[in-house]
Amino acid sequence: MTPKIAILGAGPSGLAQLRAFEAARKAGLEQIPDIVCYEKQPDWGGMWNYTWRTGLDEHGEPVHGSMYRYLWSNGPKECLEFADYSFEEHFGRPIPSYPPRAVLLDYIMGRVEKSDVRKYIRFNTAVRWVEWSDETQKFTVTVMNHDRGALESDEFDHVVVATGHFSTPQVPHFDGLDRFPGRVLHAHDFRDAREFTGKRLLLVGSSYSAEDIGTQCIKYGAEQVTFSYRSAPMGHHWPEQFSEVPLLTHVDGKVAHFRDGSTRVVDAIVLCTGYKHHYPFLPDELALRTDNRLYPRDIYKGIFFQRNPKLMYLGAQDQYFTFNMFDAQAWYARDFMLGRVDLPDFDTREQDIDHWRAREEKLSSPVEEIDFQAAYIRDLVDRTDYPEFHVERQGEVFKQWKQDKKRDIMGYRNNSYPSTLTGTVAPPLPAPWMEILDDSPESFLRHDFTAPEVSTVGRTLDRQYTPAARRSTRPAAPRTASVKA
Amino acid sequence: MTPKIAILGAGPSGLAQLRAFEAARKAGLEQIPDIVCYEKQPDWGGMWNYTWRTGLDEHGEPVHGSMYRYLWSNGPKECLEFADYSFEEHFGRPIPSYPPRAVLLDYIMGRVEKSDVRKYIRFNTAVRWVEWSDETQKFTVTVMNHDRGALESDEFDHVVVATGHFSTPQVPHFDGLDRFPGRVLHAHDFRDAREFTGKRLLLVGSSYSAEDIGTQCIKYGAEQVTFSYRSAPMGHHWPEQFSEVPLLTHVDGKVAHFRDGSTRVVDAIVLCTGYKHHYPFLPDELALRTDNRLYPRDIYKGIFFQRNPKLMYLGAQDQYFTFNMFDAQAWYARDFMLGRVDLPDFDTREQDIDHWRAREEKLSSPVEEIDFQAAYIRDLVDRTDYPEFHVERQGEVFKQWKQDKKRDIMGYRNNSYPSTLTGTVAPPLPAPWMEILDDSPESFLRHDFTAPEVSTVGRTLDRQYTPAARRSTRPAAPRTASVKA
Repeated sequence: MTPKIAILGAGPSGLAQLRAFEAARKAGLEQIPDIVCYEKQPDWGGMWNYTWRTGLDEHGEPVHGSMYRYLWSNGPKECLEFADYSFEEHFGRPIPSYPPRAVLLDYIMGRVEKSDVRKYIRFNTAVRWVEWSDETQKFTVTVMNHDRGALESDEFDHVVVATGHFSTPQVPHFDGLDRFPGRVLHAHDFRDAREFTGKRLLLVGSSYSAEDIGTQCIKYGAEQVTFSYRSAPMGHHWPEQFSEVPLLTHVDGKVAHFRDGSTRVVDAIVLCTGYKHHYPFLPDELALRTDNRLYPRDIYKGIFFQRNPKLMYLGAQDQYFTFNMFDAQAWYARDFMLGRVDLPDFDTREQDIDHWRAREEKLSSPVEEIDFQAAYIRDLVDRTDYPEFHVERQGEVFKQWKQDKKRDIMGYRNNSYPSTLTGTVAPPLPAPWMEILDDSPESFLRHDFTAPEVSTVGRTLDRQYTPAARRSTRPAAPRTASVKA
Repeated sequence: MTPKIAILGAGPSGLAQLRAFEAARKAGLEQIPDIVCYEKQPDWGGMWNYTWRTGLDEHGEPVHGSMYRYLWSNGPKECLEFADYSFEEHFGRPIPSYPPRAVLLDYIMGRVEKSDVRKYIRFNTAVRWVEWSDETQKFTVTVMNHDRGALESDEFDHVVVATGHFSTPQVPHFDGLDRFPGRVLHAHDFRDAREFTGKRLLLVGSSYSAEDIGTQCIKYGAEQVTFSYRSAPMGHHWPEQFSEVPLLTHVDGKVAHFRDGSTRVVDAIVLCTGYKHHYPFLPDELALRTDNRLYPRDIYKGIFFQRNPKLMYLGAQDQYFTFNMFDAQAWYARDFMLGRVDLPDFDTREQDIDHWRAREEKLSSPVEEIDFQAAYIRDLVDRTDYPEFHVERQGEVFKQWKQDKKRDIMGYRNNSYPSTLTGTVAPPLPAPWMEILDDSPESFLRHDFTAPEVSTVGRTLDRQYTPAARRSTRPAAPRTASVKA
């Protein structure tokens, strides 16, 4: 009998799972499993669908998306290129290394639109509850079908959790927030930087959200950005509108107080304090408990839930690699569900997890972390027929990206990197990123982009970057508080 | 055997239910039922607990509260006075008719703090799922205990749903909102009017949220408020910073377009578009389906779920009356759960519902609606030992309030009304409401308040209002856009 499979979520991970089965079908698999993919949003794309909504959506469900307007990729697109579908193939020509959100979404969707997998997805359908029966050896998945306005239940042999972990904000309390005379929000609810034009912002946090929202806001006319860090400052070469201070202790009116005794008057506060792994639809015995880390415990090969491997998690780890890592996981999960591979027994799996965890514990730098995640993906890729992709070379691009960011936080998006699929070095942006205020795909893609250099595979990576683009990076000029478009 | 009872929510309705049992105990009931009250917030008070949080709370649960800073009661406190606990008893002296939120909360909590019911409440515990078994004739309630970080299940004979229906926003889409360069929010997420100082606001909606958020924002320095109505304008005598226009059709940049072809440039948009009855923890066969109306179908006496009267709803109707109506419902529900009253058979209950619905359908004015809800409450009060309270006389105060609002939307809170318990006419506010920017209880209660008149019970209501307070009502002066405190 073909297995019956529930995929929870139609974002990059869930779509990877659908594509994995589709690839098997195209390769000759005759008995395609009975697949249902539940998606609470009205369209696929997961996190990458921008929505103006915050809090609860039109059906009363928590809004999934954390994306905001004017968001551009904060990593080179060359590091998230699918092994079987290049950017160049999708757009018909090379494009710059850092595209705006909608352009990136277009690429992700481009691959999946060519497949015949949309039919598997039940949109506007939120998963309410999953139960496992030892007796029947099946999962019962109960969902709210908002199109019908009714609950539905169905039984499955396997469940793939692909709901992401950048949707449920981690929101600490600070004394005085309840009397702060301005807006207080979590990064999850940040939508449009122009709301903060002319304002003095406090951003609590020192990770990607803080860094990116801070630079966006200055780009769109905020007057001042103060970052407040828990353990260490980001330490970038910030232009003068930025500063980094220790952790917020409390707020008194509009005055923010910090651990070093310093204070600052601010108009709005953005809590860039991260996200929770949150599975309110899973009973305790099925829910993964983890922080955002490279190798969560309790999932073998970063996928199979130890206590019940018929439950799988995709993309549950902290991420340098993203889309192609989800692919690698989905391909392996597929082969398990199709009975093509067996998993070892519990103890052997446990030892494997221990092995990876021990390695993870020793990591002490981003370079080591990147190598670790590349090794993890390599381990997966080598076990399936997922097309060869150059994990390690993408890792090298990540390392270069880290350096480029360190050198110029306001201008790192002006750099270009080579595709590990095509060898093409990306053309530069048509203008320095700080000067491109219109992030629409129409505006971005109307550019011709200059004819790119083609790198020679095998040359050292550091020499593959376009010197032209590198030279165009310059320190961001101090911005005035006026709106610039 | 004593019944086992789950109360979902420790807001005004849930607390009314706890108090109802407590009152029975004090009156000599020996076999107190086994009661558990589940509350997802860390404290009791429900909606009346202000929180700076929006969207999702510290546990990833949807934020319950819709209250904002600087919120004052928008109806006379004399209309929500408990029959067994006067405001005068609580504060030790008369206070004005329109107190700020925190003062009102203090009153509600004052009564419940005198009782010994806190022990029944499990805080930080969100209800995940309720199931009914025909076999055992019991409900299984599954909750997430966030203190323990674990799910728990228990069986109950009765379930009282007291989760309110002003928490899950109804959020329509308008074209262009995804590109609006400013903040778009639902009233549910509105927290601090000072965020909008100097801004031009569009408020979509024409009910209490729109009216109150609009006046608040002008009070705290917003430049301009435009109300957009679906069917009819509120029609108040608005000061010049306000205007009312037909429904929004779409937004183009910062320009809002309306059905009559008019346009307006706005800086922020607040969707005051109401709330959903939302019971994601109930299966379809137990979930009440209703709009916000005075007499929802499917609940007998506005309480007992028709298909299974062991499931009860408190406060599920649209509300003129609030706290004391919840009391009346809770007392009757209690007597049913204690076996003191029997319900008639399904068809007889159905006829009773039809009777009330037929009356509701004919209502054509607020005055008739107030009389209808008073009659509904009278019907309940007369069936239990709930202390006599003057429902009809409170209804008359509501009618006067409606007139006073009509006459002066910016100044209606300067009026005073008589308590139906004590006969005392409330003292006036220490200054016109528009001039009181500090809404803290400390600031409010430090006032001596002038010695009040005492009305004579039996005189016509209209003559019981304090002419002094009435005279102090004056048209609100146009405000400048500066912050005034």
